[in-house]
Amino acid sequence: MIEPQAKEMTGVELLTTIAATRKFVAAARQQGKSIGLVPTMGYLHEGHLTLARTAREQDDVVMMSIFVNPTQFGPGEDLERYPRDLERDRKLAAGAGVDAIFAPAVAEMYPPGYATYVQVEGLTEVLCGASRPGHFRGVATVVSKLLNIVQPDRAYFGLKDYQQAVVIKRLVRDLNFPVDIITVPTVREPDGLAMSSRNKYLAPDQRRSALALYRALNLGAELIRSGERRAAVVREAMAGEILARPGTRIDYVAVNDAETLAPLEEIKGRVLLALAVWVGNTRLIDNLTLEVKDDVAHHDEKQAAPGNCHRG
Amino acid sequence: MIEPQAKEMTGVELLTTIAATRKFVAAARQQGKSIGLVPTMGYLHEGHLTLARTAREQDDVVMMSIFVNPTQFGPGEDLERYPRDLERDRKLAAGAGVDAIFAPAVAEMYPPGYATYVQVEGLTEVLCGASRPGHFRGVATVVSKLLNIVQPDRAYFGLKDYQQAVVIKRLVRDLNFPVDIITVPTVREPDGLAMSSRNKYLAPDQRRSALALYRALNLGAELIRSGERRAAVVREAMAGEILARPGTRIDYVAVNDAETLAPLEEIKGRVLLALAVWVGNTRLIDNLTLEVKDDVAHHDEKQAAPGNCHRG
Repeated sequence: MIEPQAKEMTGVELLTTIAATRKFVAAARQQGKSIGLVPTMGYLHEGHLTLARTAREQDDVVMMSIFVNPTQFGPGEDLERYPRDLERDRKLAAGAGVDAIFAPAVAEMYPPGYATYVQVEGLTEVLCGASRPGHFRGVATVVSKLLNIVQPDRAYFGLKDYQQAVVIKRLVRDLNFPVDIITVPTVREPDGLAMSSRNKYLAPDQRRSALALYRALNLGAELIRSGERRAAVVREAMAGEILARPGTRIDYVAVNDAETLAPLEEIKGRVLLALAVWVGNTRLIDNLTLEVKDDVAHHDEKQAAPGNCHRG
Repeated sequence: MIEPQAKEMTGVELLTTIAATRKFVAAARQQGKSIGLVPTMGYLHEGHLTLARTAREQDDVVMMSIFVNPTQFGPGEDLERYPRDLERDRKLAAGAGVDAIFAPAVAEMYPPGYATYVQVEGLTEVLCGASRPGHFRGVATVVSKLLNIVQPDRAYFGLKDYQQAVVIKRLVRDLNFPVDIITVPTVREPDGLAMSSRNKYLAPDQRRSALALYRALNLGAELIRSGERRAAVVREAMAGEILARPGTRIDYVAVNDAETLAPLEEIKGRVLLALAVWVGNTRLIDNLTLEVKDDVAHHDEKQAAPGNCHRG
């Protein structure tokens, strides 16, 4: 299902079937090339493109999947209105060095009689997993499928979806997928708003209110750096910062262990500050990790990968 | 974790870690060799050895896994007493042309913090899935792990565990594992008892009672061939045959669709006759498939693979 015209235009091969993707990958493998996979739901932004550029540096062939995965959306969520624009994505992907896009139809990924799901327990019951039951089951399932279809050497995930990155690392470790998971720091707008395809939903006044997320995270980090160790106090301060903005509604404000994702009472070790906030009808998430060591909070330039030690 | 002495003795490499197995497999791949995997729980019998010989004919390298997988046993089942004899297995495997055995410890497969499970819905809720909740979740999980560790071209499963074969084919299709699943007909003792590691549990009188399973299956097939189309009548006749033997207790007697595994009322199409019977403290299973076409029951020499059309 290669469209040669489009390839000529953008330099990116468009694959819409699993069979064509396997063939493309097999040809690359035959030439001894390494393969990097950047799984996305499309409507690309700088965050996705940073993943692609990171893959471009490490792998001979960069594949991007673009698939708005229905099994990770709950009833009443934004599956239908989730923004899609494959032509735009293809041009952006080309600019970031992507060699091929795998953009299957839903029926290609979930044919009639589909019945198999992958569940990572524990880690998926908190934070977004608590608010969105079944979400991470859908994520773990589609990522398992993509890893089996593309068989990449490395797969790249952004840390804006911190819990997702932790869940996928656990999935890969537990089921022994032969792939390295590479996590990449959150990319932000100049004013600090984390890049998200869902930012498109925001009206100008909502866009202003959405800044509350990053401000609340920084306020939380500030409090911890200045010595506050009571998670409840930090959570309350963060919540106050968010609710001070018009049109916001809190889904969760969390101060959790960055490895186990379990809620903390006393702040110590690697700490995850994480937020999910409704701005109008749009649910936004953001997070920040920091390390509290010998009672000193470290807050580094680079956002930490789950399992590593720092952030920025 | 290769034990060279043992290899010299038997010609079979013994791998006990995932890392050593990946290394062994990578070396074979580098030489362009195809890999066949025979997953077992050990205590090998002719059924397993037939799988290995079938693999030997098709693949350059034959790997056998021997792992009594705890996640597919329920509470109170025979996990602890399940027979184990690795030295015996190694010699038998050598005789059947196995190149390497992967025999990991439980902690190698399920390290602390293990949290990921694979569930095939629907197909696993009937027959053995109904009697053994969680059993097929454990099977699908360990098979997913083994496929990722060994990355075989083909994996071989016996049709004595008919439902397992159907579940694994669905798992592989749904999650897009890059492997062909090959099913191999049930191997039987001269008197018809299906080979099983659990036959070892049977006392001589129980061994005689255990024949009831194969006789009941044949009686059921006989009735269908002679025109009976009411599944309830066939089930009842099969149950009668079993209960006529001392010390037997029925877990299930099923006349189901061989593809969907759904219970039948009227017998037509590809039909699965399946049994689970307690003989003393030992639970035995057996099955037989046949095709009812244009109102004629076909019953062939070769046992059908799920998705194929015949049996023997």
